[in-house]
Amino acid sequence: MRAVDVRNYALVVARTNYHHGALREALLKATLELIETEGIGAVSLRQVARTAGVSPGAPYHHFPDRAALLTALADEGFRLLADALTEAHEKAATPTEALEAILNAYVEFARENPAYFRIMFRPELTQPHKSPTGAEAGEAAFAVLGNTVAECVPAAERDVVAIAMWSLAHGYALLWLDGQLDHRVADPAALSHRVAALVTTLIK
Amino acid sequence: MRAVDVRNYALVVARTNYHHGALREALLKATLELIETEGIGAVSLRQVARTAGVSPGAPYHHFPDRAALLTALADEGFRLLADALTEAHEKAATPTEALEAILNAYVEFARENPAYFRIMFRPELTQPHKSPTGAEAGEAAFAVLGNTVAECVPAAERDVVAIAMWSLAHGYALLWLDGQLDHRVADPAALSHRVAALVTTLIK
Repeated sequence: MRAVDVRNYALVVARTNYHHGALREALLKATLELIETEGIGAVSLRQVARTAGVSPGAPYHHFPDRAALLTALADEGFRLLADALTEAHEKAATPTEALEAILNAYVEFARENPAYFRIMFRPELTQPHKSPTGAEAGEAAFAVLGNTVAECVPAAERDVVAIAMWSLAHGYALLWLDGQLDHRVADPAALSHRVAALVTTLIK
Repeated sequence: MRAVDVRNYALVVARTNYHHGALREALLKATLELIETEGIGAVSLRQVARTAGVSPGAPYHHFPDRAALLTALADEGFRLLADALTEAHEKAATPTEALEAILNAYVEFARENPAYFRIMFRPELTQPHKSPTGAEAGEAAFAVLGNTVAECVPAAERDVVAIAMWSLAHGYALLWLDGQLDHRVADPAALSHRVAALVTTLIK
């Protein structure tokens, strides 16, 4: 009797009880972990439940399907980004310093939260946003940048400069995340700061 | 006898004979088509064969596996991008005009070739490049930008400006492709030109 079937053992012992909010958090955390280790293709409600150590049916208490789970993560990502940009803005002494700090904070957010960052810009999840809170968070993040730019440049240039600054930080973040800078740049973090400083010098 | 099984009929009649080079081209074209219509997740050698209308074994004459097929596409994408940037450079009268034209050409390339563009920046395919020709094409594309920037700014700023310009065009292209500009910008093509013009005005 040594041959015991243990295939489902890990699942059985891991079926922890969560409070309602805690389960939701645990599922989102497990999804992030899956995206970081295996890519978004590995995300299914079943696999997320397994990673979180809960029963296969548990995710359905919070998310009707995979898209709802990923959308919740994208919304949370935009909230975190809006917070990071707001914090950068509040610490700066002048509008130009604020713009520089926002550009740096954007790139740092992407580097520190690659799974969030990639999910946030998947058009099928956020174009249009599937929830009012997600749309609000996306607009809030963009507004921090837009309002700061408005303090730095003449009214006629606001829109074009805001989109240019966003493009710059977004592009730098993705080139870095995708490994394009590795063999071209000795210290991508330092260069990121030089790029932000260069830009704000130019618009002064 | 009205119930005829036609499930494999399309496959059977579509098994066209290709010359060696033409088969490779047809497979690459079918892969691009698949990526554009169903996303990269839909790409398998079997599905590519079906789309190209050739036998399931035909792709193996050219590509040992899915990664080899996608890598060939990424390499081809970098060659096309290098050509587009070179053409933009050659048409311009001054270095600053050339830089502006290169930024516009980069964004236009991404818009006109979204499947190529997404494949080219998948790190598992091109970091590092899996073939010498792919690496050469990637460097050639970057060199067009880098050399033009070198004609526009002091030596000490070349590296940072080149990466900043690349980030700007790359970010704009991806924000546009991912639908982020749709509700914020009335005419993304026109704004793209304004962004490029703004930047080159600033570095004059």
